[in-house]
This record gives sequence, structure tokens and C-alpha cells, in this order.
Amino acid sequence: MEHVFFPPLSRVAVCGGTHGNELTGVYMVREMQKQTMDKDGPVSVTAVLANPPAVDACRRYIDTDLNRCFTDALLSAPLTDSSPYELRRAHELNAQFGPKGSKEAVDLLCDLHNTTANMGLSLILYSLDWITLHICKYLQSKISSPVRVIQLNIPISEVYSLEAVGKHGLAIEIGPQPHGVVRADIYNMMKKAVDLTLEWLQKFNTGSIFEGGEVEAFTFAKSIDYPRDPTTGEITAAIHPQLQDNDFKLLQPGDPVFMSFSRETVKYEGEPLYPFFVNECAYYEKKIAFHLAQRKNLSIPTISVKRD
Amino acid sequence: MEHVFFPPLSRVAVCGGTHGNELTGVYMVREMQKQTMDKDGPVSVTAVLANPPAVDACRRYIDTDLNRCFTDALLSAPLTDSSPYELRRAHELNAQFGPKGSKEAVDLLCDLHNTTANMGLSLILYSLDWITLHICKYLQSKISSPVRVIQLNIPISEVYSLEAVGKHGLAIEIGPQPHGVVRADIYNMMKKAVDLTLEWLQKFNTGSIFEGGEVEAFTFAKSIDYPRDPTTGEITAAIHPQLQDNDFKLLQPGDPVFMSFSRETVKYEGEPLYPFFVNECAYYEKKIAFHLAQRKNLSIPTISVKRD
Repeated sequence: MEHVFFPPLSRVAVCGGTHGNELTGVYMVREMQKQTMDKDGPVSVTAVLANPPAVDACRRYIDTDLNRCFTDALLSAPLTDSSPYELRRAHELNAQFGPKGSKEAVDLLCDLHNTTANMGLSLILYSLDWITLHICKYLQSKISSPVRVIQLNIPISEVYSLEAVGKHGLAIEIGPQPHGVVRADIYNMMKKAVDLTLEWLQKFNTGSIFEGGEVEAFTFAKSIDYPRDPTTGEITAAIHPQLQDNDFKLLQPGDPVFMSFSRETVKYEGEPLYPFFVNECAYYEKKIAFHLAQRKNLSIPTISVKRD
Repeated sequence: MEHVFFPPLSRVAVCGGTHGNELTGVYMVREMQKQTMDKDGPVSVTAVLANPPAVDACRRYIDTDLNRCFTDALLSAPLTDSSPYELRRAHELNAQFGPKGSKEAVDLLCDLHNTTANMGLSLILYSLDWITLHICKYLQSKISSPVRVIQLNIPISEVYSLEAVGKHGLAIEIGPQPHGVVRADIYNMMKKAVDLTLEWLQKFNTGSIFEGGEVEAFTFAKSIDYPRDPTTGEITAAIHPQLQDNDFKLLQPGDPVFMSFSRETVKYEGEPLYPFFVNECAYYEKKIAFHLAQRKNLSIPTISVKRD
């Protein structure tokens, strides 16, 4: 099997509060900031609240969704007095942890998110990246509950989320948790995921060889909106009880997907696919009731650190 | 057993969106508004969105919590240009469905709420009221899952919530549901509760006799706040996993109640009481981690309508 060598991954950023009402990352970052980090160890970790005004307001964002501001186009456009707060903050974060795509960027940017969907612990990647896929494989091997890998195939220039600023990027998404609420079980799961990620980096930097193999991943296929009133745009149905909380369970043609408020069932008509982000609070305004994915096995090579 | 007669209950208001991000009531009221109501039947039902701007913003409130604006003091104070939006709206609703404490008030005001707490279907009463306690008893007899009655003993002049405007008032509180999300299972439960309430009113008005008996109720004892950093006021712990989702299960001295973000357990030190509203999103800012209640059996008399 192929063996690929990578430079050491010594600078890591862990971000929370990119969405100000997703509280697990907020409290985890604050806790990490209180601890004395070993800056001279093999991994230097910086923990940062990405959107402090949104955290203070306990809202997803102030002017616009920060986690849609990190495309090359938005990061290279000049700021003006009328730029939304989050776009200005995105430029700051890009200066602190990037610039995106540069040699100066942190080696790994790990961004902490919550969802109201029953997605358990999910790891979101924006490209085929052997480093982050190996981290996913490591977490899957160390955690007994399901750890799903979601792969969004978007060219890096168009990736809009904060983790794209790092040389390698990983979003840790855990649910279900209401936004504006912190649950201890979800906090414990996030803590385990972050600790294992840092443990992997330590092992990698100190010479461990990580065997290749296969990683199961869900690759984004398309999004489905709620049924809506054509005049008002209001939704006219909720996710059907048979789909609710069943993220990552294969959806077959004919399966119920929506129940209208007048109690009629709407059935799924497409090809068999895997739903995720089912009934995510923040996606109502984005006109997304759920995403659909294909399930694939990705082959990854054996990797280890490149010795100088 | 005592037999008490009451005048017919012909005018009913069903309100949703008093908190703009509690979506079950929002969509139920909109659906009720679409249906043709039988205004000439024994019960005339008006369905209204209590806080439309907050609904549009998908926030609990715009300026201040509408459901704290209905004390006699706030309803009698003159409005000014600087009055918060919700206080002005409270005066409108009091004019439409009250005035509170008057003969002109609707016979029953039923206000629909959601909570992030695992409270199932709970019915909140602000006084010992034979009518609403009989409605509770009826719902308990018709619904197989638990229907909890919560009684807050507050003098009617100081009751701050919308349902106080009616001659009789009932808040239907269902969870767990994240604010800003509508779940079909919770919607179905709310629909059942509203339909059964209207069914009870029809039966009452057409002469049914409702036998007295006992109703189990949880009476408010006190509120417990989160542990907080004395300097910043930030919470330093989450509800402990052993308490989370265990609303209405007796809390004993020594039981864990909080888990700090540095992973220390805080134990309960008071007398045995029943927790409810455990980890309600909107109560973080009110400095309430959960409420505690005593459990009591309330004796209620046989009732029926007073014939003219």
C-alpha cells in the first residue's frame, strides 16, 4: 500500500462560537482558554471564539452567517464601512489563522458546531484530505458510538466555512442539541472528539505510522426544502415523524418525508439516499429541510510525518 | 360530593407565538385561522398570533418577554412612546380578550408554548380553578402518555402571563423541542391537547356532568440557578446527565445536578422535590437552571353548566 509523508502538524486552532448560539464550542473554547497550554510541546493549540458579539447575543450571527464568509472571493474583496460585521471578522480570522491557502496558515483548523438534527458526532470535510480522513478514522476506532464522515466536494477556493482557512480543516458537528442550550452529554462527546484529535496530532508528530484502509463517508448529493405556501413562502409541513431523528438511515422512494399541518403525508420520490441535517433549526431560512448523501468507501494511504 | 355550577364557556381564545420562536403554537394557530370555525356553535374559538413581529424574527421577543407583561400593574400603567413593543401589544391583547378580571373577558384563554425541557405535555395553571383543573383531568383521562399539571400559586393581580387575561386560563407547554424548530410529534401532541380542550368545552356547554375527584399537581416551590463565575456571570456548569431529561423525577439530596465544564459534579443539597423546566433555553438569561415542585393531590368538585 502507498505510504505518504507529510510535514509536522504543529500549529492547531480550535474555534467555537462561529455560530453564536451553538454553545458546546463556546463553553469548550472558554474552558480551553483557562487551561495552560503547553506551547512548547509537539502541538501548539490556540482556542478562539470566532464570533464574540453573536455569542454575547446568543444568536447564530449578527449581520450574516460567518461560516459562509471564507470563499476566496469574499476574503479578497476590500472591506468598506458598510461591510457586514461577520465579513470583517472573517478577514480578521483569516489574518490570524491563514491566510487561506498560504504557507503561513495553521496546520489544522478545527471548528466546533452543534445541530438540532440527530446526527450524533459527525465530521465534515470539504475535500479528499488524507490528514483529516486519518483523524476521522482514528476517532471512529476510539469511539464506540457512530462517528459519521461527511464529505462536501467543493473546490477549496469556493469553500465558505472557517476551517478552510487552515492547511487542513475539520468541522466537528454534534447533535441533537437545541441552539442556545448546552447539554452535558453533547459537551462530553465534543470533549472526547477534540481530545482524540489532539492525541492523534501528538502521535503523528512524534512519528506514529497510521495504516491506510477504507473510511466510510457520506458525500453530499442534494438538498430538499420544506413544502411552502407559494404566496407567503411559509412552510406548510413539518418533517414526518418517520424521518425525524433518522439521520443517516437510508431513505427509499415512497418513504414519508413531510407531514403537513393539515395532517397530509408527503412521500419521497427520488433515488435511495441518506438524509442528514434533518430539521436543523438554522436551515429553515436557508430553505433546507434536510440534505441527502451517497454513502461511499474512501481508500486512504498509510501516512506518517516527514522527518527533516 | 359537592356539585358546583358554572355559566357556559362560550368564548375561547387560542393563542400561539406569544414567544415567537416556539413554533408549535405558531403553526397550529395559522392552521386554525385557515379553517372555517363554527362561530354559531356552542363554543366560539378565536385563534391569534400573540407576538407577530417576534414570530417574523423567530425570536422569543423583540424588546421584552410578552409573557411577563400581564400583571395588573403593567396593564394599568399608561403607555408612552418609549414603552417596549411587547407592553403595547399586551395592552392590545388585553383589550381584545379581556380586560383582565372583567365580565367582558373571554371565558377561556389557552396559550400554546414549547420548551427545550423534556416535560412532555404539561398544563400550567396560576390558581386553583375548577374549570381548568377539570380540563386537565379530562386530558389526563384521554391521553395515554403523562399529562402533568403545574400549579403556580400567584395572586391573579400579579399573574404576568397572557392566559391570565381570560376568565379561566391555561398554558399548554410541550417539550422537548428546540426553539425555532417544529417537530411533527410535538405538533400532533399539541393538536390532540387543543382538540380535547375544545371537546371538553362542547360537552360542558351542552350539559355534561363532570365528576369530581383528585388531580395530581406539581406546585412550584423554588428555582435553582446554574453555578456561575462570580466575575463574569457566565455559567460554569451544565445540567448533569443524570438530571438532564428527567423532569418530574424526584430529586433527592446527594443526587448530581450539575457537571462543571472542568468536569466536576455538583450535588443537590435541598429537600426531596420534583424538578421541571430542566435546561429550558430561555431561562439561562432568567438565571434559572430548573424549577422545583412539590407533588400534591388536589380535590375538585363535580361541576356542570348552570342552566338559565
